[in-house]
Amino acid sequence: MEIKTPTFIIDEQQCKRNIRKIYGKVNNSGILFRPHFKTHQSAQVGEWFREMGVDKITVSSIQMARYFVSSGWKDILVAFPVNILEISDINQLAHKITLHLCVESEFTTQFLLHKITAKTGIYIKIDTGYHRTGLNPEQLDEIDAILQLIKNSKNLYFTGFLTHSGNSYQAKSFQEIKDIHNRSLVSLQSLKLHYKKWFPYLLISVGDTPSASLLPDFPDIDEIRPGNFIFYDLMQWKLGSCSLDEIAVSVACPVVAKHKSRNEIVIYGGAVHLSKEYLPAETGLPGYGLVALYNKDLTGKIPLSKTWVSRISQEHGIIKTVPENFDKINIGDLLAVIPVHSCLTANLYRSYVTTSSLLISKM
Amino acid sequence: MEIKTPTFIIDEQQCKRNIRKIYGKVNNSGILFRPHFKTHQSAQVGEWFREMGVDKITVSSIQMARYFVSSGWKDILVAFPVNILEISDINQLAHKITLHLCVESEFTTQFLLHKITAKTGIYIKIDTGYHRTGLNPEQLDEIDAILQLIKNSKNLYFTGFLTHSGNSYQAKSFQEIKDIHNRSLVSLQSLKLHYKKWFPYLLISVGDTPSASLLPDFPDIDEIRPGNFIFYDLMQWKLGSCSLDEIAVSVACPVVAKHKSRNEIVIYGGAVHLSKEYLPAETGLPGYGLVALYNKDLTGKIPLSKTWVSRISQEHGIIKTVPENFDKINIGDLLAVIPVHSCLTANLYRSYVTTSSLLISKM
Repeated sequence: MEIKTPTFIIDEQQCKRNIRKIYGKVNNSGILFRPHFKTHQSAQVGEWFREMGVDKITVSSIQMARYFVSSGWKDILVAFPVNILEISDINQLAHKITLHLCVESEFTTQFLLHKITAKTGIYIKIDTGYHRTGLNPEQLDEIDAILQLIKNSKNLYFTGFLTHSGNSYQAKSFQEIKDIHNRSLVSLQSLKLHYKKWFPYLLISVGDTPSASLLPDFPDIDEIRPGNFIFYDLMQWKLGSCSLDEIAVSVACPVVAKHKSRNEIVIYGGAVHLSKEYLPAETGLPGYGLVALYNKDLTGKIPLSKTWVSRISQEHGIIKTVPENFDKINIGDLLAVIPVHSCLTANLYRSYVTTSSLLISKM
Repeated sequence: MEIKTPTFIIDEQQCKRNIRKIYGKVNNSGILFRPHFKTHQSAQVGEWFREMGVDKITVSSIQMARYFVSSGWKDILVAFPVNILEISDINQLAHKITLHLCVESEFTTQFLLHKITAKTGIYIKIDTGYHRTGLNPEQLDEIDAILQLIKNSKNLYFTGFLTHSGNSYQAKSFQEIKDIHNRSLVSLQSLKLHYKKWFPYLLISVGDTPSASLLPDFPDIDEIRPGNFIFYDLMQWKLGSCSLDEIAVSVACPVVAKHKSRNEIVIYGGAVHLSKEYLPAETGLPGYGLVALYNKDLTGKIPLSKTWVSRISQEHGIIKTVPENFDKINIGDLLAVIPVHSCLTANLYRSYVTTSSLLISKM
C-alpha cells in the first residue's frame, strides 16, 4: 500500500507481543482479563485478543459497545458513568449481550431500577485517589443505598467495585506506581470484605496500563482492564511501562519543507493527525512526538537523536532537529512520529495500516 | 432531533451573520475573498458562502479539495506546502478545476515543473513573522529561482504571494494585531513592487481571522483567506475578534455525575469531543471550554459564571464550578461547552447538528 498522507501505522507482531506479555501475567495470577478497547476501537485488532482466548472487554461508550457487538463480542463493560439519556440504546444492548454498566450515584441507580428492561451487571465506580469521578471508598451510606436499590431490582445485579488509578500516569517512579496501586487495592479490598457477606461473588477490578505493565503479578485482584498497553506510547515509555521498541504504533508523515537556518523540518502531520497531547521535550519545550526513520518496509524505526515535533497547528508539524539529522531528511521522505498518547492519536483516524501494508478498519 | 451524546451544535443564523460581517468589508474594499473551509469541512456549510456569492475557496489538503470539488467548487487553493507524494491526485484535480498550490522551495517547484500535467496556479508562501514555514521576504534569490522555473513551465503560472500571520493569535491587544498585519503588508507589498513588472497581475493574499475581524477595511491587499470567523471560539473571543454571542458553535454534553464536596460536575465530553486545546482559565489552571446552559431549543446559550471545563481525559470532562451554579445542574442535563479552538473541535465530528435540529454532513 502506497502511503502518501499522514497514516497511523500499527506493528501487528509487536501488538501481539504486548498482549501476550500482560495476558501471560493475568493467566499466572488466575484473574479475569477485560482489556479496554477504546485505545484501538477496531474489530480487526479485537480479533488479536480473541485468538488468544479473551472473551470479555471494556469500552468507553454505548456506541463503541454496539460496534463491538456487531463483531461478535458478548460480554461488555461500558466503563463510563451511565448516561441516562441513552437508556433506550442501553436496553437494546442489554437484551442482546451480557452488559455491565458503571454507576456512582443513587440517582442514576434509581433511574436504572425503573427503566432497565433486561438483566444488567452493575459495577460501582470507586475513586481511590485520581479524583476524576467515582464514590469515595468511605461513602458507605451512599454505597449501601445503591446496593439496596440493586437488591430490590428484578434486572440489576451487582458485579463489583471498579477503579481507574489514573493518578499512576503522573507517577515519577516504579515505587510510586506500586504505592498508588497498593493504596487502590487496600480501599477496594476493605470494601470487598465489608460487602462480601451480602454479595459473595463481587469482583474488584482495576484498570491502568502502568500497574498492569510493571507489576509482576496481581494478587488480591479479581480483574484487570488496561487498554493502552497494546500500542503503548511516549507517555508510557516515560513512566517506564514499556521500552521504546515496545511502542507498536507511529504516524507516517510526509516531509513538505525544510528550514536550514533554524534546523526545522515541516511535515504534513498536525493536531488533526497527532492530537495536541504533549510532553516536555529535551529543551523543556512541549514535545508532540519523537521522530524516527522507517526501515524500507515500515517494520522498524530508527529514532533520530535530538529530533522531535516541537510545534503543531491544524495540519503542520514543525520538527526541531540538529544539523547532522537535518541533512539526512529530504522533501518527500516519510518520517515516523512516535505519538505522545496513542489513544488520542488513534482516535483521529478512520482506518489504520499495518507494517505489512494491510488496511485495518475501525469504528 | 434528540441529542443523547456529545454533539457539535451550529447556529446557522449566527454563522451567516459572521460571514456577512467579513464579506461586507471585503466587498467595500473591492478585494477577493477566498475563505478557508478547513474550519467547517462541510459541503452544506459551504453552501451558506455560495448563496452570498463566494466562488473561490481555500482548503488545507488535497483530500479536502477533492471533497469540495464533488460539491461543485471550481476554484480552490490548497494552502499547505505541496506534498510531492500526492502528485497523481494533484494532477487529477488540476485537470478538473482551477487549482492553486502553495510552494516555498526550488526543489518542490522543480518537481512540479516536471510532473504537473495541467494548468496550475502557484502561490509562493512568505513567512512574515510567524516562523512556521514559508520563505523569508528577503530571500530574493530563492524567490527569483522559483519564479524563473514557473516562467519556464508550460503548466505552472504565478498567482501571487501568500502569508498566514498566525503570530496574530498570540497578540495581546488590537494594536498588536494591527502592527502584525501592517508588518506582513509591508513585506508583501515590497515583494509586489519588486516583481510586478515581471508579473503584472500578481496578488498578495493574507489569511488570519483576527485581522479580518478587527480591521475596518483592507486597503493594499488583493485577497483575504480567513477561516475560523464563521464559527469563532474562545481563543478569538480572548483576542477580541468576536463577542461571546458571536461564537456560533458549542458542544452539547450530557451530565453524568456530580461531586458536591469539590463543586465538580462530570460530563460525557472529553478530549475526543473537545480536543486538548486549552486556555488559561480564571484561576490560572488550563481551561478546555466555558460552560453555558442551553435555551430549550438550543438557539441561545446562557454562560455560567465561574464555570469551565478544568480537566479532560478521553471521554470525561470535569467542570469546575461554584455552589450557586452546582445546584442548577442535574444528572441528565445537556450542557453547552463553548470550545477553545473550534477548528480542532469540529474536526473530531463526522456530522454537526444545527440549532434548528438539522443534521449537517461533513468530510
